[in-house]
Amino acid sequence: LGALLVVDTVASLAAVPLDVDRERVDVCFSGSQKAISAPPGMSPITVSPAAEEAFRKRKTKVQSWYFDLTTAMNYWGKDRLYHHTPPVSLIFALREAMRLVVEEGLETRWERHRVNQLALIAGLEAMGLKLLVEKPSDRLPTVTAVMIPSGVDDEKLRNQLLDEFNIEIAGGFGPIKGKIWRVGLMGYSSQKPNVLLFLAALEKCLIDQGFRVSSGAGVGGAVQGYTHAETAAAVSR
Amino acid sequence: LGALLVVDTVASLAAVPLDVDRERVDVCFSGSQKAISAPPGMSPITVSPAAEEAFRKRKTKVQSWYFDLTTAMNYWGKDRLYHHTPPVSLIFALREAMRLVVEEGLETRWERHRVNQLALIAGLEAMGLKLLVEKPSDRLPTVTAVMIPSGVDDEKLRNQLLDEFNIEIAGGFGPIKGKIWRVGLMGYSSQKPNVLLFLAALEKCLIDQGFRVSSGAGVGGAVQGYTHAETAAAVSR
Repeated sequence: LGALLVVDTVASLAAVPLDVDRERVDVCFSGSQKAISAPPGMSPITVSPAAEEAFRKRKTKVQSWYFDLTTAMNYWGKDRLYHHTPPVSLIFALREAMRLVVEEGLETRWERHRVNQLALIAGLEAMGLKLLVEKPSDRLPTVTAVMIPSGVDDEKLRNQLLDEFNIEIAGGFGPIKGKIWRVGLMGYSSQKPNVLLFLAALEKCLIDQGFRVSSGAGVGGAVQGYTHAETAAAVSR
Repeated sequence: LGALLVVDTVASLAAVPLDVDRERVDVCFSGSQKAISAPPGMSPITVSPAAEEAFRKRKTKVQSWYFDLTTAMNYWGKDRLYHHTPPVSLIFALREAMRLVVEEGLETRWERHRVNQLALIAGLEAMGLKLLVEKPSDRLPTVTAVMIPSGVDDEKLRNQLLDEFNIEIAGGFGPIKGKIWRVGLMGYSSQKPNVLLFLAALEKCLIDQGFRVSSGAGVGGAVQGYTHAETAAAVSR
């Protein structure tokens, strides 16, 4: 075919199983500040030999110096030909973040993201909330899209979460603006305490807006979710 | 005319007198890691009302998301419409670097760069070296281009400076590759000790390659240069 497979792993790298070579990904790009939990400002990228060959065979000039991989390749290559001044301090920070990824272990990390997501979902559903993505296998372990219940003010709720609990969740954009919340659990922030505190805080904010939740339902659902996951893990050992 | 004036101040901002508004610069861009001496990874930029209007009137799509000021303007504007995740830690570092610029004072800073450049040039000329830019008013106070004397090996000398003295100077590129050295004195590094140490180290490296310099000529020339500058400053007060 000669087509190249380009995969966006901005919200998944270091959180979701991925084997770039085995899955024959030609270009895989991500962000430093998501599940890797390094400071923002960089995009890790891989380029397969096939993609590199395609770049080298280009006949037209790349339209933007800013993101010109053909000249950046000369920087990475033997010549070390100057393309731009790299963000040195961020590179050291990324290296340290990657060291922490290796220390935890990729598989442990994937499992951590999966378990926290399942507990979050168990809690949300126990509160009577619906998810945007219905099929569990289609859900991203790092971002959970929750339908905003009718009668609840999107921005008001997100501001209250931020002001009262220092928790920031994202709204939707484009056609689902105002219809969903996006709850991120990535890298460092994918933690049991964050899941439980978020559910408790969300309950408070929803009740303040008149949405009826049975007391403690979200936290209760998540705790059950964790217990299930731990039992399952113990059985599989 | 309707033309826009775009000025590259990468090697000059915070080192050379500049009044963006008075000089009617429409777009002025720089780098964080040069005379501002913040970590690399950002490009401060200004956009005049005329330039902003030209951007807003575009009928064609910007070819690169990566550096699309028309959508970035919605990020800067009232809407705070998401364009990219900003490099937060670098922004704090830039702020601190700018605070140090303000603490020193812009005019003091400009004068510091000017005096160190003049002393450097006095030292280089006392060693019998020639500059690429002959007219003094055409010279940049932050980068001095020195002609490599015949018989001296460019790369060998630069490697020795780096290995033996931890001083890095740049070579030329394009048509002047191998013909000049570029000596930077920018921001934090524009300091008397750096000027004197560099001249002393250069003397050592040049002598090791058989180039004849009368002993201590460079440092002597620079010291005289500083004395002249200080006398002139005292008189003008």
